[in-house]
Amino acid sequence: MYRTKTCGELRIADVAKVVTLCGWIQKIRKMGALTFIDLRDRYGITQIVLDESKNPELLKTALGREFVIQAKGNVIERSSKNQNIATGEIELEVTELNVLNAALTPPFTIEDDTDGGEDLRMKYRYLDLRRNPVKQNMMLRYGVNREVRNYLHDQGFLDIETPFLIKSTPEGARDFVVPSRMNQGEFYALPQSPQTFKQLLMVSGYDRYYQIVKCFRDEDLRADRQPEFTQIDCEMAFVEQEDILQMFEGLIKHLFKTVKNIDYTEVVPRMTWDDAMWNYGNDKPDIRFEMKLQNLKSLGKVFADVLNQTDFKVFNDAETVIAICVPNAAEYSRKQTDELIEWVKRPQIGMGGLAFLKCAADGTFKSSFDKFYDAEKLKSLATFCNAKPNDLILILAGTEEKTRKATSDLRMEMATRLGFRKPDEFKLLWVYDFPLFEFALEDQDGGGVGRWVARHHPFTSPKPEHIDIMVNNSPKVENLEKYLEHPYAQIKANAYDLILNGNELGGGSIRIFQKDLQQKMFEALGMSEEEANHKFGFLLGAFEYGAPPHGGLAFGFDRLCALLGGSEIIRDFIAFPKNNSGRDVMMDSPSTIAEKQLKELGLKG
Amino acid sequence: MYRTKTCGELRIADVAKVVTLCGWIQKIRKMGALTFIDLRDRYGITQIVLDESKNPELLKTALGREFVIQAKGNVIERSSKNQNIATGEIELEVTELNVLNAALTPPFTIEDDTDGGEDLRMKYRYLDLRRNPVKQNMMLRYGVNREVRNYLHDQGFLDIETPFLIKSTPEGARDFVVPSRMNQGEFYALPQSPQTFKQLLMVSGYDRYYQIVKCFRDEDLRADRQPEFTQIDCEMAFVEQEDILQMFEGLIKHLFKTVKNIDYTEVVPRMTWDDAMWNYGNDKPDIRFEMKLQNLKSLGKVFADVLNQTDFKVFNDAETVIAICVPNAAEYSRKQTDELIEWVKRPQIGMGGLAFLKCAADGTFKSSFDKFYDAEKLKSLATFCNAKPNDLILILAGTEEKTRKATSDLRMEMATRLGFRKPDEFKLLWVYDFPLFEFALEDQDGGGVGRWVARHHPFTSPKPEHIDIMVNNSPKVENLEKYLEHPYAQIKANAYDLILNGNELGGGSIRIFQKDLQQKMFEALGMSEEEANHKFGFLLGAFEYGAPPHGGLAFGFDRLCALLGGSEIIRDFIAFPKNNSGRDVMMDSPSTIAEKQLKELGLKG
Repeated sequence: MYRTKTCGELRIADVAKVVTLCGWIQKIRKMGALTFIDLRDRYGITQIVLDESKNPELLKTALGREFVIQAKGNVIERSSKNQNIATGEIELEVTELNVLNAALTPPFTIEDDTDGGEDLRMKYRYLDLRRNPVKQNMMLRYGVNREVRNYLHDQGFLDIETPFLIKSTPEGARDFVVPSRMNQGEFYALPQSPQTFKQLLMVSGYDRYYQIVKCFRDEDLRADRQPEFTQIDCEMAFVEQEDILQMFEGLIKHLFKTVKNIDYTEVVPRMTWDDAMWNYGNDKPDIRFEMKLQNLKSLGKVFADVLNQTDFKVFNDAETVIAICVPNAAEYSRKQTDELIEWVKRPQIGMGGLAFLKCAADGTFKSSFDKFYDAEKLKSLATFCNAKPNDLILILAGTEEKTRKATSDLRMEMATRLGFRKPDEFKLLWVYDFPLFEFALEDQDGGGVGRWVARHHPFTSPKPEHIDIMVNNSPKVENLEKYLEHPYAQIKANAYDLILNGNELGGGSIRIFQKDLQQKMFEALGMSEEEANHKFGFLLGAFEYGAPPHGGLAFGFDRLCALLGGSEIIRDFIAFPKNNSGRDVMMDSPSTIAEKQLKELGLKG
Repeated sequence: MYRTKTCGELRIADVAKVVTLCGWIQKIRKMGALTFIDLRDRYGITQIVLDESKNPELLKTALGREFVIQAKGNVIERSSKNQNIATGEIELEVTELNVLNAALTPPFTIEDDTDGGEDLRMKYRYLDLRRNPVKQNMMLRYGVNREVRNYLHDQGFLDIETPFLIKSTPEGARDFVVPSRMNQGEFYALPQSPQTFKQLLMVSGYDRYYQIVKCFRDEDLRADRQPEFTQIDCEMAFVEQEDILQMFEGLIKHLFKTVKNIDYTEVVPRMTWDDAMWNYGNDKPDIRFEMKLQNLKSLGKVFADVLNQTDFKVFNDAETVIAICVPNAAEYSRKQTDELIEWVKRPQIGMGGLAFLKCAADGTFKSSFDKFYDAEKLKSLATFCNAKPNDLILILAGTEEKTRKATSDLRMEMATRLGFRKPDEFKLLWVYDFPLFEFALEDQDGGGVGRWVARHHPFTSPKPEHIDIMVNNSPKVENLEKYLEHPYAQIKANAYDLILNGNELGGGSIRIFQKDLQQKMFEALGMSEEEANHKFGFLLGAFEYGAPPHGGLAFGFDRLCALLGGSEIIRDFIAFPKNNSGRDVMMDSPSTIAEKQLKELGLKG
């Protein structure tokens, strides 16, 4: 062992001990004959002192930032103590010093606030990982990993490894594939999730399964989405939705307690998907704050009668009109409202404009559409919206889906501006009763016929009371534009998502466990019997030999860690992430491979 | 929740409780009006009773083996108790019965001794996993997983995930590669191990790292070798070889205690690689028994003088002659010795024959080469071999490497036949001081020039006292046949393997952490500077910014589990293994993929 102590553990009680430390030089300060060095390792920083008057040998070696050294000496009490660090009462008076490895000057400073940009830090990730904030993220990630395992172990879950070289059955996202050398022309696929395997484990009787496991999706990367990511993957047999919600609500509360020291004792509220879409405009609402959507008009149906009484074409002609009441913003200046209008016009939001109505503290109203609404009508509108004095009502109008999404985005934006999204406040929410299907108007193959796709995945069970709708109706949609009128659009799934502060922590469902129903599902998704058997024959087979009722869920581990760390940037919580083009800039991957490899794989003649 | 209790937990104290169980029907026995069912789940078996006289409704539903049922009823005391199972004192008198799912008759019996052959069980792996012995293996595997984590956590190790989509740097085994859709013509590789990443983590200061992680090697599969396998991967900084041996000896002893309830308190013996090869003929000796190799002659040098005094050409002409003394086998019949001769002639062993010398209890000797050796000489030979009365001396002669391996195989075979390889006896052994290099006479590319290859991997450090040999000599071998005389053949590595009962549990090394030495190593392996920078530039770069001394090791997790389970068949300890052709016969993978996928990947025009 090169050391007898770490740089984080010496205290006043250790004074007079002879110890050896190893670490990296964080900082060097010369003061006359004394040289003070902050020596850093994973555990902390200890000040070491080289005294030229006592030991001139010590300073013969060149030292510099990030040099790795070994220092032996006596622990002494500091004359000027540093209360900011745990070792701040002592220092090491060095008697022997060895440079274990020199270091070039790092390309950016190894400090909490570094001068290195994102690209540089990614290229030298092994240096970035030395910085305290990044180290804290890694430690938090390990802590979450450990505590997930502890909780699930105590609940009787077994960690069972499932294969990585599996069969390609793309359904939704693209698979990464792996050419087989021994079976040329054939491919393995990397799992998008261990979904079918965990279901097979239920069929095998391992009634509580989990894994913290890498998954892979070959998608065009959006900001901060990784081609490989980690899931906490769980499944249980002989359970209903309620059992699963309670089990995993318990897991997250355990993490709050053990990782964040937060007693999250409140019951987690639950909300149907319909309510979430109606009240918040999206299916992962941030409920740390209100500002619910006020639906004035939806799909042409008018809820706020006052809308019928004017000739304001913007509202009259719109399919949908939605308002939010922003508290204490009635005094917004013209400049501020103009800026908001520009904000909703940005391509990411894409609205044509924004109407507003200021509800002054004195009970008067002022709107951007005063020309069409008299004071009475403005008041009626404010009343319909449950506006309070000093509220600024923001109103968007347009097509259903776009307007809903834009209002949701606007709600989040206003919340951010007004400081409602407090990083140290955590609000969990279950959203459930998702639609089983979505309708894809354009088939990915460009066939353009439109078909039902599974909103969650093809193994999700319809709600028991909706099974009949599925079994008794053909999936065929005659009029593509009126797909919402097809019975399948009404089928709800036994599916649920757990939301934290407006982010999806994870989600899951009760699964289909009957062969017939699973076949019907494949048929509904436009899969021929032959294709279903080719892709999922093993699962259909397994359902014939005694499959128990089961369900589960998966958490996005990267995002969970980020959110518990008070961030939404998952890249910062992954030791060696890829950039937004799916590249590892540190090792420069992907890269070309040797001709010989290509030939062996049959990829080159 | 479908159940209130599991099938493994009811005891006599639960009598009179009303409970609901769920599980699979293991067995049905009808006795008059009573139907007894063994109901099985992960936790055990509980007998449930349907009483037709009390409740004729119950038997209206068809039942059969492996049906999934839910049974509610009263816990009652059994009249005839079954002491063999934990629930044997009670049974469930059923009042309500639901069939949750029916089952076809399984293709093989779900019993400890099944009638299903390997292929059938693999095809229906989800049914095979229900069998008790397989379940025990999976539970053991989870137990090992859990306890590895507990031990390493207590020792301050962090589980840090490393990427799966990395860069192809084949060195030894072939990489599995993953075509990149977004960077066409480029490929990721799946990691053969996280070697370079864990070294980078040491450079980053995370001085105790571990992972239980999947690794991938595209090799021609030998029996029971899997293309994807699991490693316990560990690395430590600021350590020397001794620290690592102690740390991981501790880990294995912890597993013996917690998983097997065995107090393995003895110090684990250590043996140099030279001694292992000399005394056991291989580098992973099984030391549960003796029968060490007696080297009569090696590389032409004669150790047993008596060999010089006869004209037995078989011994005289051989490069190497090695004997083992098999205890209490002097009375072997002609038929038995003939059979042994056939055994060594099999292609797997490939020897021309076997000489033997029987050391009778009365002090007389009888050999297969009496024609050339008189009684005196036979006695001298026996004395040289340290033979005891009743020993059967078996002697093989031939070229060095082949004879050594054959004698080692023969030693193991005799031990198996004589019952020396006791499955409940565990003997650990460290083997260390491995050669740093091996010489590959035929280059894989067919160049035929011959080159040094890393015995462990290119990151293993030479022993400090051998660094000079490496630095001061050119790797070039002038005379390929005399490569053993090249200085590089003498260089020993700071590498070590942990052996259990003749099987390699794992191995590792102290790593190179100096840029210059690492470059010299790449050069020694025949890599140009350009190639070294292309493949490992990131590592060489990292070594410039303050790399600490470090080392580590990796255990083969699959094998570790198998050995702790008293088996050497790793496939039995993997939930979803592949067969010897790398196929998953259950899901039928690898398989062809869609044209569209090939096109998107640029693998088809």
